[in-house]
Amino acid sequence: MSLANGQPYRAIPGPSVIPDRVQRAMHRGSPNIYGGALVEMVAGMIPDLRRVAGTAHHVAPYIGNGHAAWEAANANIFSKGETALVLASGHFGHGWANHARGMGIDVEMLDFGRADPADPARLETALRADRERKIKAVLVTQVDTASSVRNDIAALRAAMDAAGHDALLVVDCIASLGCDEYHMDDWGVDVTVAACQKGLMVPPGMSFVWFSDKARSRCGETDLVTPYWRWGPRAQGEEFWQYWFGTAPTAHLYGLREALDMILHEEGLENVWRRHEVLAGAVWAAFDAWGAGNPAIAMNVRDPAFRGRSVTAARLGAPHATQLRDWCEAEAGVTLGIGLGMSTPDDPAGDGFLRVAHMGHVNAHMTLGALAVMEAGILALKIPHGPGGIAAAAARVAQG
Amino acid sequence: MSLANGQPYRAIPGPSVIPDRVQRAMHRGSPNIYGGALVEMVAGMIPDLRRVAGTAHHVAPYIGNGHAAWEAANANIFSKGETALVLASGHFGHGWANHARGMGIDVEMLDFGRADPADPARLETALRADRERKIKAVLVTQVDTASSVRNDIAALRAAMDAAGHDALLVVDCIASLGCDEYHMDDWGVDVTVAACQKGLMVPPGMSFVWFSDKARSRCGETDLVTPYWRWGPRAQGEEFWQYWFGTAPTAHLYGLREALDMILHEEGLENVWRRHEVLAGAVWAAFDAWGAGNPAIAMNVRDPAFRGRSVTAARLGAPHATQLRDWCEAEAGVTLGIGLGMSTPDDPAGDGFLRVAHMGHVNAHMTLGALAVMEAGILALKIPHGPGGIAAAAARVAQG
Amino acid sequence: MSLANGQPYRAIPGPSVIPDRVQRAMHRGSPNIYGGALVEMVAGMIPDLRRVAGTAHHVAPYIGNGHAAWEAANANIFSKGETALVLASGHFGHGWANHARGMGIDVEMLDFGRADPADPARLETALRADRERKIKAVLVTQVDTASSVRNDIAALRAAMDAAGHDALLVVDCIASLGCDEYHMDDWGVDVTVAACQKGLMVPPGMSFVWFSDKARSRCGETDLVTPYWRWGPRAQGEEFWQYWFGTAPTAHLYGLREALDMILHEEGLENVWRRHEVLAGAVWAAFDAWGAGNPAIAMNVRDPAFRGRSVTAARLGAPHATQLRDWCEAEAGVTLGIGLGMSTPDDPAGDGFLRVAHMGHVNAHMTLGALAVMEAGILALKIPHGPGGIAAAAARVAQG
Amino acid sequence: MSLANGQPYRAIPGPSVIPDRVQRAMHRGSPNIYGGALVEMVAGMIPDLRRVAGTAHHVAPYIGNGHAAWEAANANIFSKGETALVLASGHFGHGWANHARGMGIDVEMLDFGRADPADPARLETALRADRERKIKAVLVTQVDTASSVRNDIAALRAAMDAAGHDALLVVDCIASLGCDEYHMDDWGVDVTVAACQKGLMVPPGMSFVWFSDKARSRCGETDLVTPYWRWGPRAQGEEFWQYWFGTAPTAHLYGLREALDMILHEEGLENVWRRHEVLAGAVWAAFDAWGAGNPAIAMNVRDPAFRGRSVTAARLGAPHATQLRDWCEAEAGVTLGIGLGMSTPDDPAGDGFLRVAHMGHVNAHMTLGALAVMEAGILALKIPHGPGGIAAAAARVAQG
Repeated sequence: MSLANGQPYRAIPGPSVIPDRVQRAMHRGSPNIYGGALVEMVAGMIPDLRRVAGTAHHVAPYIGNGHAAWEAANANIFSKGETALVLASGHFGHGWANHARGMGIDVEMLDFGRADPADPARLETALRADRERKIKAVLVTQVDTASSVRNDIAALRAAMDAAGHDALLVVDCIASLGCDEYHMDDWGVDVTVAACQKGLMVPPGMSFVWFSDKARSRCGETDLVTPYWRWGPRAQGEEFWQYWFGTAPTAHLYGLREALDMILHEEGLENVWRRHEVLAGAVWAAFDAWGAGNPAIAMNVRDPAFRGRSVTAARLGAPHATQLRDWCEAEAGVTLGIGLGMSTPDDPAGDGFLRVAHMGHVNAHMTLGALAVMEAGILALKIPHGPGGIAAAAARVAQG
Repeated sequence: MSLANGQPYRAIPGPSVIPDRVQRAMHRGSPNIYGGALVEMVAGMIPDLRRVAGTAHHVAPYIGNGHAAWEAANANIFSKGETALVLASGHFGHGWANHARGMGIDVEMLDFGRADPADPARLETALRADRERKIKAVLVTQVDTASSVRNDIAALRAAMDAAGHDALLVVDCIASLGCDEYHMDDWGVDVTVAACQKGLMVPPGMSFVWFSDKARSRCGETDLVTPYWRWGPRAQGEEFWQYWFGTAPTAHLYGLREALDMILHEEGLENVWRRHEVLAGAVWAAFDAWGAGNPAIAMNVRDPAFRGRSVTAARLGAPHATQLRDWCEAEAGVTLGIGLGMSTPDDPAGDGFLRVAHMGHVNAHMTLGALAVMEAGILALKIPHGPGGIAAAAARVAQG
Repeated sequence: MSLANGQPYRAIPGPSVIPDRVQRAMHRGSPNIYGGALVEMVAGMIPDLRRVAGTAHHVAPYIGNGHAAWEAANANIFSKGETALVLASGHFGHGWANHARGMGIDVEMLDFGRADPADPARLETALRADRERKIKAVLVTQVDTASSVRNDIAALRAAMDAAGHDALLVVDCIASLGCDEYHMDDWGVDVTVAACQKGLMVPPGMSFVWFSDKARSRCGETDLVTPYWRWGPRAQGEEFWQYWFGTAPTAHLYGLREALDMILHEEGLENVWRRHEVLAGAVWAAFDAWGAGNPAIAMNVRDPAFRGRSVTAARLGAPHATQLRDWCEAEAGVTLGIGLGMSTPDDPAGDGFLRVAHMGHVNAHMTLGALAVMEAGILALKIPHGPGGIAAAAARVAQG
Repeated sequence: MSLANGQPYRAIPGPSVIPDRVQRAMHRGSPNIYGGALVEMVAGMIPDLRRVAGTAHHVAPYIGNGHAAWEAANANIFSKGETALVLASGHFGHGWANHARGMGIDVEMLDFGRADPADPARLETALRADRERKIKAVLVTQVDTASSVRNDIAALRAAMDAAGHDALLVVDCIASLGCDEYHMDDWGVDVTVAACQKGLMVPPGMSFVWFSDKARSRCGETDLVTPYWRWGPRAQGEEFWQYWFGTAPTAHLYGLREALDMILHEEGLENVWRRHEVLAGAVWAAFDAWGAGNPAIAMNVRDPAFRGRSVTAARLGAPHATQLRDWCEAEAGVTLGIGLGMSTPDDPAGDGFLRVAHMGHVNAHMTLGALAVMEAGILALKIPHGPGGIAAAAARVAQG
């Protein structure tokens, strides 16, 4: 007998839960791609894509995943041998740096570990030290999907300004767009990258690069850019095929239209952010209670200000995290995320970490249900813990 | 800002949550209805329909809802002026009695109120008193969807046997089939009625009457039976159209096939029952905690043995139940059931009762999530209550 | 190798092709049935249901198929022993008559064979002969799905008026509603019955009875009416559950809403009728050509004025019709309808007849494609025929 | 009034008609991407992806469209400044050449115009002339989607062998895979590129590069290859994420699995090719008839041996092609393809050409229906033409 039979809930940090409406919108035959309704729909969607990132500038859509967006941004920003300063606060910072290196870009790293945000002071220092102005751009994730560290983008911008360095600020919002508050233009971001399968609630297959006029002119035509990655024609879409450099991802476009309607025209982006804020708070309240008096249980990021609102990474100690993940999936219908990039010498397989996603199409029922299931699993597995986790989460939700 | 935006959960006692697989199976174009795959599929499904009700006898499928199944059973069992003994343990017992009266059937009632099961002793007494053997059949719900009272069908059969009365035993399993343990043949039931939209996990639109050889021969051709309701040709389906007396409900058939596969061939009927048993227990544990020291909060049925495993009716006091239902739907994405037929002089609008469904496609995540949301709502609305409801529910789930 | 692999086309006279939009609309989870969006949607749909039948009066919706609608109409119109005059112009006229007899209604038949419409003069004569005014209602199909004969309803009404008989006029539009022009009120029809799976483009599972004030008052409360069939509460739906006498057919309702939008608010009912007129004309042109000089091939109804616009029954001679149906399905992806009720002493299995449906969601591509496939099959099977069938059909479409 | 209302048929050369089964398979919630059913499904699909291209070697899947596959192949084959010999027989040959140039690859062109296949003799001559062995690879489309010219890949391979040149043979099967016979290994092809949205019957969003051991070793690590395009890790997928270099295109994978089942495990690849052969023949028969005595109407490719089996480009004279396309879409529900890259000085807008697709999920009904609609449109628009087009097409289908 299993209590998992029912609607499964994947509380993994992407691909996130796809709303029924989005799935329904995607379920249709192939449209004409040379004119008509699809072409008009996409034209109307471009302003919404800008709006969801908080920019009045440009957006280049790609058929691809988050790594495609990384490569697209890198290719348009850098020529071979130019220098990127990467601020790493978890697994994906290093991944992006490696990706850049793999393209022939010189990378300087500021590594803030796996549990701490990028420190603006260290950024400022590093930029001041760059007397030759070799650094062309600073690359940073808003939220690292693996560590769940959230960086303070505005503070990093301020540090760059304080240093008087003209490097571009390039932000990876893959794990945060449509979840965490974000203002590309207001915060002085030059390039933003994201994908569709997390806060944007569409199955994996599209990603985006937003870029400012400054980025466009500063980068010009790099020697890394290729026809597929070149952002200019995609952002203008003078002919429909140019948005996609070829055939459009028709099914995804219907889904994205529906998702943007939900976010921007129905719920409202600020309300979406606030919903994620409260649900993240509920998750944190549960972990605080479970970890009270039990140092083995703790969230990865100590300071709530630097925790992502879309995903929470936590330590339960090996093998408890893996046991709990297995129990929740097999016995209760909840799939939790693995602890990505969190192995340690004591725990080489990373069985001591897990992640709870609370991103995108997620409500109080889904998140409280996942936490209640975790509490049931903790009890069933006799994992030492403090009491009152799910009760505290419910109380947090009650506050709104 | 609302925390309801996400996958909504309708914890209402029917129509229940339709599995994605069932929805997907129904999403297809019209098939040929004169031969081929559909005809074969239905032939293969009839044995499964028998099995889900625990009978080796006959099943007549109908395009219709639960009320259609009532009328079908009544029409095949009774001629005008014959007598039904109805055992009422809630709203739907009275509804069925009224339906029978509306068809010209004489009805004797044994009314057990809105919170208690049918008493076998009173049934035995009533049957013994029927010296003229006017009572042709005893009608009873296994679980009343409104009161959530569950009757002990085997005990009622024993009472009928003890009375030496040959009336048929007719059981309404609309709210319980595929949720509560049920053995039509083993328990000596002559006629069972159910519909597809609760434990069978298919959108409303089909209902069923199972009947024994004894019922068939005892009833013969009543004067109430009409071509649409006549169960014989439907149960035999010698020509495909006869199952449905006309055009088949094609989309529903694909859904039903999928649902029966899930219940019988994947999870297993005994495991389905056990899952409902545990999830019902979790709901009860929460109410027990909330109601501890707060007599305003109580489940409708005192004795767990007589509570349905698919739905729980509970009292919170007016207007708290309605306030809580409104809050859960608007703020957290959970729709609870209204308190049907539960108005009282003090609460004419029935704002003091609600129902939590835990029927069909429901797992630990869904049920614990609903309870956690209720606890959040109770807190947000400052409804007086005992602590520890959701924690107790999680603990119940942990026991399995 | 088969040329059938691709999107199959079922050119059978119901269930008809369900539009993708309708399928998509039906693909959704269970809604709340006690309030909210569904309840409002249905309230708004009732006027459209009236409009599609051309009446300002009442419509009672049923979960059921066409036979359910027959029984519903019969039950509300007749008490046992009252007399129906049935005008039969094919299989379903006899079916309805048998259904009425099976309910205890006295039936007088005027049988016009399998290829001719009801003769108003014979109707007038029969009514004049009914000096005792025993006939309570005249029952007639607008289009018989099997014979494809279309009756002239307005002429039949005129005959009734000429006879000065006050019987009700009851019309079965199951095979014609949303295909053939129909004006319930203008033509003096008292009761109309139809189902959702033909011109209304929704999977089988709903049917409808429209009735006038006159019908309502003339019939009063018959002794055949039962709670399930009683049309009054369904037509008023004072409480939502009363429309359906119980649980609503939720998935179907979303589909029906979409279909009515397509018919009434996008294409327009007159345009729908005109489209069917032209497509029927294309089918007729093909048969005229194939049958020229080949008396073995002929449409069942000689006079185009009396042919249904939704389906064409035709004779090819046994076993050619069955061979052609088999070829078209196995080799080309088109399923044609069997020749229902068309067996003859020479052709007891009915292998000489077939039907081509052109009802509902059907366009020039679908119908011309079916005819071209038929012509290919006629050639492949070496069935003697006149040339130019599909060319003539294309020419008919060219005229618009 | 329009005869277009019904199931629309897009006879455009991609995205092609997506089977209902494929759409249904894609309509599901996000799966776990770190283990479980999806991971196993993909492992089982790789051999089928090889099989559909006729190779026992490697396949690298990409989230992307056909242009992404071009870039992927180019990046893995060439370093900057290396030379590609491109054989152009239509629009896309030039497109691929431009794409290569845009990546810094030197391109030599052999241009065979817009209506003729690549000439093996000219290829041999060109290769013999390349004494310095600068040409690293020969790039050619099997079928050019725009011109519908089909090249004889085996003959081109033979020419390369005859020249004793060791350049790689790289074939673009975007418009032909799963439609035209193709044997990557048997024909000595080193690299094949294709996408999912034509013969593979999945919405746009995935593309593929198949490559031989020889290609892999000959190319080594080019300086154009970047982490996103590198084919090695994708082809091995040692960790699941490596197939996609990041997040997998989950919805598409379910669709592709279904489509490959249809092609390889149900119909059989040879039968699929044969079906396309016959349906193409039907299209050609219609054009032959319409063009008889009317030189204004003619297929683009004179010799049937060099016509693609998936798409037919044809000339009707300006503005007749555009008029016919408009009529077919607006009046009959068929969308034809525009005449891509077919403008001439006399017809700068390309209004004289159109394309009829017959690729992927297409059967006799769909293709004959499209041709019948075209004949109706030709008549309605009074375009001069020879008689008997659709009749000839039906006769071709009758031959099988």
